Amino acid sequence: MLNYRKNINAMPSYDGIEKNYRIKVNANESTLNLPPLVEERVLNRLYHVAFNRYPNEEYYSLVEQIARNFSVKEEQILLGNGSSEIIEKVFHTFGGDGHKVVFPVPSFSMYKIYAKAADSQAVPFDLDKNFDIDVDKFIKTVQDSRADLAVICNPNNPTGNALTVDDVEKIAASINCAFLLDEAYVEFYGHSAFKLVAKYPNLIVARTFSKAYGMAGARVGYMIANADVTRMVGKTFMPYHMNTLSLVAADIVYQMRDEFTPRIQITVAERKRISQLLKMIPALEVFPSHTNFILIRHEKAERLKNYLESVDIGVRYFSPSAQGLKNCLRLSMGTREENDEVFKVISDWLNTD
Amino acid sequence: MLNYRKNINAMPSYDGIEKNYRIKVNANESTLNLPPLVEERVLNRLYHVAFNRYPNEEYYSLVEQIARNFSVKEEQILLGNGSSEIIEKVFHTFGGDGHKVVFPVPSFSMYKIYAKAADSQAVPFDLDKNFDIDVDKFIKTVQDSRADLAVICNPNNPTGNALTVDDVEKIAASINCAFLLDEAYVEFYGHSAFKLVAKYPNLIVARTFSKAYGMAGARVGYMIANADVTRMVGKTFMPYHMNTLSLVAADIVYQMRDEFTPRIQITVAERKRISQLLKMIPALEVFPSHTNFILIRHEKAERLKNYLESVDIGVRYFSPSAQGLKNCLRLSMGTREENDEVFKVISDWLNTD
Repeated sequence: MLNYRKNINAMPSYDGIEKNYRIKVNANESTLNLPPLVEERVLNRLYHVAFNRYPNEEYYSLVEQIARNFSVKEEQILLGNGSSEIIEKVFHTFGGDGHKVVFPVPSFSMYKIYAKAADSQAVPFDLDKNFDIDVDKFIKTVQDSRADLAVICNPNNPTGNALTVDDVEKIAASINCAFLLDEAYVEFYGHSAFKLVAKYPNLIVARTFSKAYGMAGARVGYMIANADVTRMVGKTFMPYHMNTLSLVAADIVYQMRDEFTPRIQITVAERKRISQLLKMIPALEVFPSHTNFILIRHEKAERLKNYLESVDIGVRYFSPSAQGLKNCLRLSMGTREENDEVFKVISDWLNTD
Repeated sequence: MLNYRKNINAMPSYDGIEKNYRIKVNANESTLNLPPLVEERVLNRLYHVAFNRYPNEEYYSLVEQIARNFSVKEEQILLGNGSSEIIEKVFHTFGGDGHKVVFPVPSFSMYKIYAKAADSQAVPFDLDKNFDIDVDKFIKTVQDSRADLAVICNPNNPTGNALTVDDVEKIAASINCAFLLDEAYVEFYGHSAFKLVAKYPNLIVARTFSKAYGMAGARVGYMIANADVTRMVGKTFMPYHMNTLSLVAADIVYQMRDEFTPRIQITVAERKRISQLLKMIPALEVFPSHTNFILIRHEKAERLKNYLESVDIGVRYFSPSAQGLKNCLRLSMGTREENDEVFKVISDWLNTD
């Protein structure tokens, strides 16, 4: 009888292959692969990779670029396998028996799992019925629970709404514990709070290449924080945790990030356009969004999801057990044509069902 | 004052850029990049990667291939970012407060760190003066300490020697706890114990693409174990922990692994040839090796290392605090020409110093 780590059996397993839908708007991915100019340079760079050597200066080259862009020191940046790994490690760093972590619900569903993996006690904070955060109440919850880590996803996934940078600052200034700001979707919002890192040593900003920069497959994310914090979080990463291929690809993408501006603008415009169209459908609730996706609610959501899948359109449906998300569907923005088709299928089905 | 996880400050940090030596034989890497035929197919495959999509079937495609090759079920395979991550997660899975892990010393230096990261108590097992494992004593140590995990690196890094598969079986049969067999260098030895997994449900075999398959930069490793064990270890991996680029590259490499046979044979032949040459140098101790490297000992090791670095040859030197490795240097095998030069520089310097 093998003696496993305590509580490990209670952790979920992740497996199974996801269907490759004809229109795949279920994972908040970029619907487009890299811009052709960028892809060409990435592939040229991959031609020169020393597969046989452990990753080395490729890590620091990307760190240097990011630090320069944010006008912070290189010691303030850490890279991870997606911002997922950054978040996992931050939870671990501030976790442990008796440690508490406050995070909003509904939000990124993994926060609960990361808390458990870190042996921390989860303190879920309920968003109001419009999915807004009552900032004063959030601060009070963090203070009253004597939390070790507070987390906010801004803009929030899967609801789409966002706090202002002033509200983020108010939280950072009012709590003493570590404060992780998950900005996975911030490029679609336009208001990052990264500058607050200089002022609030408890603030950690997590960013990703997976959404606006269309690199979900490469698994690259980063964090910006006070150098003391990055030093401690850095200790939880084992040597060579990042691979050379993803590092050089992200390096090129970051150099050429202006190439992504048009598609980010188009995504934002599409989100606005489709939100307007969806709002005209009776009995369909459409939540305001500052991201690359739209959350909608309809009492026939589950059947609608099944119908969409039957015509090879994958959307994100939330199980009835997902608190606050009953009857909700999340639609990532695709191309204009994809969005039009998704809208038409939804609209036709709801009008005729 | 931020409240960090207990003991995290005591963990080491990994950073700094390593020098790119003209002859780099310090990291047991393959000195050659991928065979041209393989590299061409890898790069062609990378041309078709959907960077924008989260990794999906690419993970299972590689798992399926590996399972087929070892005639095990797919549920018995897990992939990690190098066998490093496999080892880290196995330590975590069987770790925790009050858990003990037995590992040989000297061996892979990270075992101690992984034990600490897993909150486990390290029980180092001293190799004898020839770096051999006294199998009965090892079994007794595991039993007497009531260990939760026993680890052996076979062949052993950095010493190069190996246990027979019979000895591995004797250990697997005699201990009740989890038994991690780190076979990072097994392709140079030729005697894997993977078949024992079918017989011993406590056995976990870790393998890597980093050494014989020249893929250290891609960070891909895997484990083979009983499906119950992989299910539990699998719970410690977060979703999308592997990236698409490395997965498709490893997939091609694994399909074409026969292309690596000649270079593995050449490496083994070079190791034998260079060992013989080194043995002719007076006062130089040369340890027998079944790997792609040779461990040597000389009282002037540190100065020799400095001299080698001064002529742009990077070798692995072990600090005096590395138990059992005083005055030792480790030389990975390079090309025939590189090995000849390394040998000549060592030989000349020791003869004239």
